Amino acid sequence: MATGIRIGIVGFGNIGRAVEMAVAQNPDMTVAGIFTRRGPGGVVPRYDTSKVYDIAAAEAFRDEIDVAVLCGGSATDLPEQGPFFAAIFNTVDSFDTHARIPEYYASVDRAAKQAGTTCVISTGWDPGLFSLMRVMGESVLPEGTSYTFWGPGLSQGHSDAIRRIAGVIDARQYTIPIEGAVDRVRSGEQPSFTAREKHFRDCYVVAADGADQDAIRREITEMPHYFDEYDTKVTFISRDEMKEKHAVMPHGGFVIRTGNDDAGNKSVSEFSLKLESNPGFTASILVAYARAAYRLSREGRTGAKTVFDIAPAYLSMKGREELIRDQL
Amino acid sequence: MATGIRIGIVGFGNIGRAVEMAVAQNPDMTVAGIFTRRGPGGVVPRYDTSKVYDIAAAEAFRDEIDVAVLCGGSATDLPEQGPFFAAIFNTVDSFDTHARIPEYYASVDRAAKQAGTTCVISTGWDPGLFSLMRVMGESVLPEGTSYTFWGPGLSQGHSDAIRRIAGVIDARQYTIPIEGAVDRVRSGEQPSFTAREKHFRDCYVVAADGADQDAIRREITEMPHYFDEYDTKVTFISRDEMKEKHAVMPHGGFVIRTGNDDAGNKSVSEFSLKLESNPGFTASILVAYARAAYRLSREGRTGAKTVFDIAPAYLSMKGREELIRDQL
Repeated sequence: MATGIRIGIVGFGNIGRAVEMAVAQNPDMTVAGIFTRRGPGGVVPRYDTSKVYDIAAAEAFRDEIDVAVLCGGSATDLPEQGPFFAAIFNTVDSFDTHARIPEYYASVDRAAKQAGTTCVISTGWDPGLFSLMRVMGESVLPEGTSYTFWGPGLSQGHSDAIRRIAGVIDARQYTIPIEGAVDRVRSGEQPSFTAREKHFRDCYVVAADGADQDAIRREITEMPHYFDEYDTKVTFISRDEMKEKHAVMPHGGFVIRTGNDDAGNKSVSEFSLKLESNPGFTASILVAYARAAYRLSREGRTGAKTVFDIAPAYLSMKGREELIRDQL
Repeated sequence: MATGIRIGIVGFGNIGRAVEMAVAQNPDMTVAGIFTRRGPGGVVPRYDTSKVYDIAAAEAFRDEIDVAVLCGGSATDLPEQGPFFAAIFNTVDSFDTHARIPEYYASVDRAAKQAGTTCVISTGWDPGLFSLMRVMGESVLPEGTSYTFWGPGLSQGHSDAIRRIAGVIDARQYTIPIEGAVDRVRSGEQPSFTAREKHFRDCYVVAADGADQDAIRREITEMPHYFDEYDTKVTFISRDEMKEKHAVMPHGGFVIRTGNDDAGNKSVSEFSLKLESNPGFTASILVAYARAAYRLSREGRTGAKTVFDIAPAYLSMKGREELIRDQL
C-alpha cells in the first residue's frame, strides 16, 4: 500500500501536536517524521508510528518528505524557518503577524523559486479561511462593507503580552465580540465601529505573591495596541483555578460582508467558526493546504502561495469528477 | 479609457436584468450587448448605455465580447445554449439541475476545448458558493457531517411546479428551514434528518374562479419529489394579494460542517446568506466568475470550469499584491 503524502512536522508545540492528530484523519497522508529542537526523547508523540528527530537533521530527509508543515511561532521561529525550509521542502505554515506578511511572503518566495519548491504561507483560519472569505465577500458584493469579529475565544498573543508583565505568573485573555455590534452588522446596516465597540477583552491573571495587583491591572489596560483601545476586565485568580477552568483553547469568530445591488436590495453573507480547540482546527487546515502544496508542486507551480492562489479542489481528498457529481 | 472586460448578457429575464445591474457595480467591466429572443425593442434595459440585439445575432460579436453570461433557464435553455455559446465565447452560467450537472459539464467542456474558450458552469450561490463551502468544510474537517439548509426564501422551481397544476393561475413557494433542526446542527451533535425534518414548504396559490381548491391542495402536497416528502401548507389568496405581498424574491440558506479532531474537540463552521433579492445576488456572483473566466482564458486555461477549479484571487478586482497586503 502506498504511504500517500509524506508529511514532516517541524516544531512540536500545540500546533505540531495537533498536526500529528490531523494527519491521522486524512487517509491519503502519513507522518514521515517529527522534527523538534528537543530531539528524539525530548517529546512524546501521540501515535507509536510517529518518529521523532532533531530539527537539525531535517535536511537529510529531503527525499523522504513531500511537504513540511512548519509549526513554529510567527514572532521568532518562522521568519527564519520559513525561508530556510522553503529551500529544502515544499512547506505550509500559519505565519500570522499581519503587518509583516508581505515581507515574509517575499523571503519565502525567493527561497522557494530558487529551490523549485511550493510553499503555502499564512494559512489556518485567520489568516487563512477568514482571509479567503474576506476576498470572496468583497468580490461578490463589490458595494458593501466587510467585518471580521474574533471570539469568543482565547487569544494567545494577548495572553503572552500579559505574561510578560512583571509579577504575572500566568494569564489568559479571552476576546469577546460585542453582541450589539454583531447584531447591527447582521441586520445589513453597514455601521462604522471603533475597536472598543467591536470587541471586549476579558483577562484572567495569576499574580505572584505580594505583587501589586493594581499596578498589573493598570499595566494591562493601558498597554498600547493590545489593550488601550478596548474595554478590558482583569480578574485575579489562583494557580489552581487557572489549571481547572482555563486549560482548553476554544476560539472562533465570523466574517460578515453586507452589501446591496444597484436597486438597493441588501445581501448579508456570513462565515462563522466555533472551535473547541483552536490548535486542532488550525492544524486540520494546515494539513488540507499541505495536500494542495503537494499537488501544486507536482504540477510544477513553484514559489510562495497563499489561500488566494489555491482552487478549492486542491484541498479535497476526492477527485474532481466526484466533486462535480456529488458536491456541486 | 479602457472599457475593461466586455460582458455579453444572453437572455434578459430576472437574472439577465440583474447581471446588467451587477456589471454597473464593477468598474473593470462594461455591458457589450444584451442578447434576447425578443430582440431590440422587445426589452427595456436599465441603463441607456446598454444595447439590445437579437439573440440570433450574437455570433457576430465574437470579437467584441470577452465573456458571455448565459442567463437562460436550466430546464430547456442552457442544455442547448451552454455548448452552443461555448463554441463562440468564454461563458459563465448558473446551470442548477444538480442531477444533470455531469452531463452538462461534459457537453460544455467538449465545445469549449474544441473552440479554445473558458466556460464556468453552475455558479451562483447553490450551486456555486454553497458548493465551494461544502468542499472546503469537508476538506478541513474530514471527520464530520455537512448540512445544507435553504431559505427562508422563494423557490422558483417549486413555484413553477405548482403553476403547472390545472386551475392554478399563479403561485409562490417559500422554503423554510426548521429551526429546531438548525439548532441541533449548530450545537455540533451531527444528527440525521429526513427531508421533512429539515425544511417546511409554505405555498401561496391564486386559483382560477370555480377551481377545486381541495383537489389543487392535494395535488400539491402529494407531488412526488417536490412536496410529498415534506410538510406543506397551502394558502389560497387573491391576485391582488399576490401582487402586493409576494412581488420580491428573497432567499438565503446556510451550509454547516460540524466535525471533531482526533481528541474529540468539536468544530462548527457555518456559511450563511440572507438575500433580499435572489437574482441580484446570483448575478453578482456570475459577474465575479466572469472576471475569473476572462483571466483564465488569457492564461490559456480552456475548457469547462467549476467553482472548485478557480482560486479566489481570480474573482477579485484587486491585484494579488494588494490582496496579500490588505486581506490576508
